[in-house]
Amino acid sequence: MKDSAVLLIDCPDRKGLVARVSSLLYRHGANILHADQHQDHELGLFFMRVEFALNGSATGTADSPSETPHAAPFDIEAFRAEFDHLAVELSMRWQLTATTRRPRVALFCSQYLHCMADLLYRRRAGELACEIPIIVSNHRDVERLADFYAIPFHYIPVTAATRAAAEARHLDLLEHHGIELVVLARYMQILSPAFVARYPAGIVNVHHSFLPAFTGARPYHAAHARGVKLIGATSHYVTEILDDGPIIEQDVARISHRDQVEDLVARGRDLERIVLSRAVRWHLDRRILCYGNKTVVFD
Amino acid sequence: MKDSAVLLIDCPDRKGLVARVSSLLYRHGANILHADQHQDHELGLFFMRVEFALNGSATGTADSPSETPHAAPFDIEAFRAEFDHLAVELSMRWQLTATTRRPRVALFCSQYLHCMADLLYRRRAGELACEIPIIVSNHRDVERLADFYAIPFHYIPVTAATRAAAEARHLDLLEHHGIELVVLARYMQILSPAFVARYPAGIVNVHHSFLPAFTGARPYHAAHARGVKLIGATSHYVTEILDDGPIIEQDVARISHRDQVEDLVARGRDLERIVLSRAVRWHLDRRILCYGNKTVVFD
Amino acid sequence: MKDSAVLLIDCPDRKGLVARVSSLLYRHGANILHADQHQDHELGLFFMRVEFALNGSATGTADSPSETPHAAPFDIEAFRAEFDHLAVELSMRWQLTATTRRPRVALFCSQYLHCMADLLYRRRAGELACEIPIIVSNHRDVERLADFYAIPFHYIPVTAATRAAAEARHLDLLEHHGIELVVLARYMQILSPAFVARYPAGIVNVHHSFLPAFTGARPYHAAHARGVKLIGATSHYVTEILDDGPIIEQDVARISHRDQVEDLVARGRDLERIVLSRAVRWHLDRRILCYGNKTVVFD
Amino acid sequence: MKDSAVLLIDCPDRKGLVARVSSLLYRHGANILHADQHQDHELGLFFMRVEFALNGSATGTADSPSETPHAAPFDIEAFRAEFDHLAVELSMRWQLTATTRRPRVALFCSQYLHCMADLLYRRRAGELACEIPIIVSNHRDVERLADFYAIPFHYIPVTAATRAAAEARHLDLLEHHGIELVVLARYMQILSPAFVARYPAGIVNVHHSFLPAFTGARPYHAAHARGVKLIGATSHYVTEILDDGPIIEQDVARISHRDQVEDLVARGRDLERIVLSRAVRWHLDRRILCYGNKTVVFD
Repeated sequence: MKDSAVLLIDCPDRKGLVARVSSLLYRHGANILHADQHQDHELGLFFMRVEFALNGSATGTADSPSETPHAAPFDIEAFRAEFDHLAVELSMRWQLTATTRRPRVALFCSQYLHCMADLLYRRRAGELACEIPIIVSNHRDVERLADFYAIPFHYIPVTAATRAAAEARHLDLLEHHGIELVVLARYMQILSPAFVARYPAGIVNVHHSFLPAFTGARPYHAAHARGVKLIGATSHYVTEILDDGPIIEQDVARISHRDQVEDLVARGRDLERIVLSRAVRWHLDRRILCYGNKTVVFD
Repeated sequence: MKDSAVLLIDCPDRKGLVARVSSLLYRHGANILHADQHQDHELGLFFMRVEFALNGSATGTADSPSETPHAAPFDIEAFRAEFDHLAVELSMRWQLTATTRRPRVALFCSQYLHCMADLLYRRRAGELACEIPIIVSNHRDVERLADFYAIPFHYIPVTAATRAAAEARHLDLLEHHGIELVVLARYMQILSPAFVARYPAGIVNVHHSFLPAFTGARPYHAAHARGVKLIGATSHYVTEILDDGPIIEQDVARISHRDQVEDLVARGRDLERIVLSRAVRWHLDRRILCYGNKTVVFD
Repeated sequence: MKDSAVLLIDCPDRKGLVARVSSLLYRHGANILHADQHQDHELGLFFMRVEFALNGSATGTADSPSETPHAAPFDIEAFRAEFDHLAVELSMRWQLTATTRRPRVALFCSQYLHCMADLLYRRRAGELACEIPIIVSNHRDVERLADFYAIPFHYIPVTAATRAAAEARHLDLLEHHGIELVVLARYMQILSPAFVARYPAGIVNVHHSFLPAFTGARPYHAAHARGVKLIGATSHYVTEILDDGPIIEQDVARISHRDQVEDLVARGRDLERIVLSRAVRWHLDRRILCYGNKTVVFD
Repeated sequence: MKDSAVLLIDCPDRKGLVARVSSLLYRHGANILHADQHQDHELGLFFMRVEFALNGSATGTADSPSETPHAAPFDIEAFRAEFDHLAVELSMRWQLTATTRRPRVALFCSQYLHCMADLLYRRRAGELACEIPIIVSNHRDVERLADFYAIPFHYIPVTAATRAAAEARHLDLLEHHGIELVVLARYMQILSPAFVARYPAGIVNVHHSFLPAFTGARPYHAAHARGVKLIGATSHYVTEILDDGPIIEQDVARISHRDQVEDLVARGRDLERIVLSRAVRWHLDRRILCYGNKTVVFD
């Protein structure tokens, strides 16, 4: 695990933003590992992501000791205090997070387990830097898989009559476990606006089509009926409007007239796994900033 | 140029279709170069494409003379006559075409010339086996390009007031030149239902989005506004309903938050060229069968 | 599970092959679900795959009863007997297999488990129609995963000194369990020519490069050193020559100057999973024919 | 045309580089439009590209006048003088170029004209910001195309006996026309080491394979013989060693057992056009930095 921190900023664009942020980091002795910026010239917005080492002698730096203003470990709290003044002056929204801090993630699914199995495997393999305190489903199919990965499983069935009560249980669980990110890994229930409002840019969903084509239910059936030559999948943040939130990632696969709906479903599983796992990894690596109904994804 | 013929069939599915068609070809001494079939099990339809040599000693056959029932050139008219009986019995729609016969194609465009330039170059390079007796445009931009390729250019401006008259001139031209295929290479005028009805599965268009997403005008603007991560282009047969005809080919390219509308337009040009030129080539090679609102594209 | 059979043929090319095979099937009342052919004109070879229903009333046929020569179930043994005469006459190599017969597959791996986990998940999900009686590894890492899927695990460590003995144990196990296909899911030991000779076109490997680039060890390091802009993975049948057997499937992913070797390794895992699982599925579905050092993969 | 400038830097990595460069730009009143950095941690190298407006009131800035340190146009020469001191201190290699300055490019080709036609079309369409004073070929095929675009054509045949003399003429022409970039658009002659040495990172070639696979002549034949499932094309800077220079861009297309060598050649043409035109555009936009045998391509 790298001993580093990520600073994410968005604010109104103006001259000198890069200079002021990078100078402040330099004065505190930060060793920048990677920096990226983006301007939306239409809206006059500025976005920045900086990753820097927290340790004076971070791997891969070319500094000789004599040139280093600060050889000691980076004092993240001192920096945070000073940066806060800058942020107020420049109307910045910002977050500064140590890479070692692992966000707490809840995974939701229904009967289809391919995305769930994929995310759990990737976390075990070290691709996803997070804690997963709970798995939630309205079906029992995932239980054995949750056991295998030793993650507490919460079975919360949902019917029209119990929807409100189920969601109350969901929210209790999320709060109790300090969940910061909810991943809907083919969870087939629609969340209420109140639920969504509790986790702005904090719920990631995968939709099994190339949005905005084929919103709603049964997109593979719709794609087959329309006779498209490529199918797609989309990962996005959840907003109040179904299948309409900021898109994080999309991918497609070629199909032909030979492919029946069940072939599309099978091909689509691979797409869904890939676009969802990328979205989760980028979110955990603090690579994503939302604005309006779009995302900036720093690579 | 290969001395071969292509037989395209579609009919209600039933047992023995492959056997009966291939046996008839065999009795006439056809040397099959490539054959492909498709069944749509839901609709109970059968589709077949067979390409066979017209010359008894076609390149690449493994036949020794003693085993060949017919060493003489294939008698296409005799076969046609006998096949017609079979077709009636089995309710087949069919076409049999010598590969050497080059369909007559009209190219339409407006101001954007990238697809037009690409199609003309590909024909010159031998990728498109067709005649192009006319180029039609409601703008003069294409004139020099038409001259370079020595193809007669017809400038037919279109306004709300002249639309009907312009279309009458179009249809006269198409009839006069014996046009079998109309290619809309970014032709930005909508054709009337009457025009479309004259060329069923005979008008190919390119739409600059991944249909069915972003139908209608300014799809790149719509894609940018939605924040998609891939843009697409679609070639399709034109039907009465705008951007709704049977899809022939689609392709996509990855974009990012950095790309502005003009970047999408530039990236999209490459997609449009590729999906349109593939559609035209496959049509000319008699690889496409339409049914319902879909296509079978034999590879 | 479809109640169907697949007939795979390769033989010297000659006129009338499609007619004779399809007529024989028709006389036996086969209802062809899908047929595909290929000719290699340079080598004068013919390849064919036919899938047909074994049940007279197979789903999706359009036959009316009165037109069906045989309403009874297809008599596969009677067909096999008659086809054998044709095969001898036409010098065919052929195999005819009921789709319900599930091949017996052994999975080998070393420490990296991503391909193994993927194959096991896909089989559970119904994507791979096979039995997996044994998992073999020279490491213990896979043991828990094997337990989860309730597949007997055989730990057979390999050193220079024990290589021959280990391979003898491998061969005993494969024979004892009637294994027809060996899948090397990132198994990092080289098999002896004697082992390979026992399973012609019966051992599938995944190599973590776009072959023929970067054969041998540490291909991601080599790709990084060369500065390529795409990385790849390749699944292929194993022959005596390392990384040289007939290629079944390849895929690539885009990388950039930002990607370090460990990023390539992580990106590559997804490629490896996909190309290996496709190869195994196509093999199990009898879609692959080898000839020379190439494959025909019927889609 | 944007009124902007691009600053490209590479130097040994050390702390504070971003801060020092961006602060200097800020003091001179630059309005940064886009900035990107890269560190190679293994080699201890730092790379940076900054694009900034030369006009105080550049489109899309969010600055209110009162906050702008310099409302006057950016004084590029004053900046250049001061930056030079910084560059010496920090051992930087750098170039600063106004976007309006259009590099002078020579295009070379042989008989195959698809890349040449594509580059000429793209420049006409505004995708390539350069002057093209000369087209050079050892064949006459390109002459009509050069005429169409009104670019002087130089026919310089090359034989074993005349190679040295031909190259002397090439170099004279390049010098006479002040050529900064030579594009080998399927030019099938090998350049001498002396020629290559005159244009370090100044000659772009397209090779019709996925390098490092299939170097040398007839790569499509080699790919067909090996039975690969994807073909590729590569654009790269030319170095003394054939097909070995720093790779700029690569792309691939899927093929199947049906594709013969001529199909690969046809499919490959599209790949070659795309990877070469991207390389040329990125070079012209000053997006590429070479180091060792690799490229950084800023997006």
